Amino acid sequence: MMFSLACATVGARRVVRGARPLATMSEAASIDSIRAAESRIRDHVVRTPLLSSPFLDELVGRRVLVKAECLQRTGSFKIRGAWSAVSAIPDAERAGGVIAYSSGNHGQGVACAAEAFGIPAVIVMPEDTPSLKIANTKAYGAEVVLYDRETESREEIGGRIAAERGMTLVKPFDDPQVISGQGTVGLEIAEQAAAAGVADADVLVCCGGGGLSSGIALALEATAPGLRVRTCEPERFDDTARSLASGQRERNAAAGGSICDAIVTPTPGELTFPVLRRLAGAGLVVSEREALDAMRHAFLRLKVVAEPGGAVALAAALHRTADLAAGDAVICVISGGNCDPAMFERALSAV
Amino acid sequence: MMFSLACATVGARRVVRGARPLATMSEAASIDSIRAAESRIRDHVVRTPLLSSPFLDELVGRRVLVKAECLQRTGSFKIRGAWSAVSAIPDAERAGGVIAYSSGNHGQGVACAAEAFGIPAVIVMPEDTPSLKIANTKAYGAEVVLYDRETESREEIGGRIAAERGMTLVKPFDDPQVISGQGTVGLEIAEQAAAAGVADADVLVCCGGGGLSSGIALALEATAPGLRVRTCEPERFDDTARSLASGQRERNAAAGGSICDAIVTPTPGELTFPVLRRLAGAGLVVSEREALDAMRHAFLRLKVVAEPGGAVALAAALHRTADLAAGDAVICVISGGNCDPAMFERALSAV
Repeated sequence: MMFSLACATVGARRVVRGARPLATMSEAASIDSIRAAESRIRDHVVRTPLLSSPFLDELVGRRVLVKAECLQRTGSFKIRGAWSAVSAIPDAERAGGVIAYSSGNHGQGVACAAEAFGIPAVIVMPEDTPSLKIANTKAYGAEVVLYDRETESREEIGGRIAAERGMTLVKPFDDPQVISGQGTVGLEIAEQAAAAGVADADVLVCCGGGGLSSGIALALEATAPGLRVRTCEPERFDDTARSLASGQRERNAAAGGSICDAIVTPTPGELTFPVLRRLAGAGLVVSEREALDAMRHAFLRLKVVAEPGGAVALAAALHRTADLAAGDAVICVISGGNCDPAMFERALSAV
Repeated sequence: MMFSLACATVGARRVVRGARPLATMSEAASIDSIRAAESRIRDHVVRTPLLSSPFLDELVGRRVLVKAECLQRTGSFKIRGAWSAVSAIPDAERAGGVIAYSSGNHGQGVACAAEAFGIPAVIVMPEDTPSLKIANTKAYGAEVVLYDRETESREEIGGRIAAERGMTLVKPFDDPQVISGQGTVGLEIAEQAAAAGVADADVLVCCGGGGLSSGIALALEATAPGLRVRTCEPERFDDTARSLASGQRERNAAAGGSICDAIVTPTPGELTFPVLRRLAGAGLVVSEREALDAMRHAFLRLKVVAEPGGAVALAAALHRTADLAAGDAVICVISGGNCDPAMFERALSAV
């Protein structure tokens, strides 16, 4: 299964560039591709800390360890997958530039990596993207193209521009190199959890298309088998939780309109879902109010800035404690911190 | 000079306990005492990251590296000095408990260390301390005694309770073991700056009594001689800048009333000032508005929470750029992040 899915995706990416060889089996994301990605991105991304607070431990009733990817370069984990993918494109192809469609954080990651490689980048973003993310993406030198989530298809727009300009599409999650880059978070969690004496825990991961969740799951399978991924999503955008329950890829009714903009995708990825079905526990779902409450706790107790979508894993630790497996601790990924001031003030006022 | 000052302070601490031997020369803070403190506290404090953002680099016109001590255990660097001092008290004496006077962060540090050592703690705090700091100090199991900054002396209250209850006073800055603990920040900065390729830079440090500044200065003198401490203070509480200019310890006119509550002290320390006079460059002074602006930049660009007093060094990098020495970069310490939500909202709204 991993073979055909990997082919499908890599083939899809390449078809916009014309006649490319089909992917081979080795291009599916795996612990080997994650380790290879790690060696390419190591010097360009932050090894983010695993934070803790006795106040959170007391609230949850067990140790809470928080992987603070909000402190990552570009303000979210997305730079890992973006750098992994951009660095894996053959030189001659990469010189033509890259294009990405993104709710914001992947776009910033691709724009930042493209700037570092000295190549042009076009980022296709929904019109309702927080202004901070749009401004940052432009500041990395990328061209931003806005679209309407309700009426337009980002895949169609991205594919068309890629074909017209000869750019390589860097998908947000359904690409083995992107999954492999995100999986480096899992390598770090495995090492940091071991250093903290934690061998047995749920690892709560904010989940949109599943690139981060599936990458971490693959990394943990190989390096820390007592750590198990649990996907975390906001209400109304719980496609992964429902898909894990039904065994097939389910879709969300709404296309947008969540404050958790970073993790709103219509359905789990073709490549990511089989990994999650095999390795992840039941999905966890939180309300927007609970996400805001988690942002407030991250502010008060960890002194970091989480954006709403980046806070849903901590929200699940705080508000779905009864649904966690037994273990030494719970590990949560804060996946991003690119939050407009007005939204953060809303979180601080939410009690 | 270091000899007599060390004696004076250690003697002062011990006089409240009765007949103790005077300190010996080896008790002055030095690179050796900093390394010894590091070995005692290493497993109990966070090795905080050195953060950066291309947006800050562009604003300042050089690389900006930010030592994020807001991510430290208890939310500020103060746990380092507190743990260093508490762990250095002879066992029999320590069993009687510890007392500290503190605007908040040192109190939390001493309370946290005391709880870990299983001994009682009394923390004497100004009545205008942010409520988060008071609540946290109590949560670490300490007894909190409030006093009026304008009419009462915290030294007098602390000395009296120490004598009555047989507790050891842990001073906030004028103690060689406290300075040595804070100096471990400097050891980490030296290593992290070298890893970042920075050999020549001003190191901007938020300064109250000077424990952190003088500890870092001593550590850098021995391990990174191209890095030079610059103290940073808020307007009206610029006693260190004026003292460095005049060559003698000057006092502030006001006793309180700054939003930068963490670094409001009447005058530089007896032990800390001679170190700063020998090793630090000219002091930098910023307005409260500039401190709030730096908090906003830390939120937007670094995704960390700085309290007003903890943000003055970043404020100086942003707003006193012309006063920095030539160099590869500027390094700033964000010294704490224990900020009430209302104050943080004020920073987010300040444009």
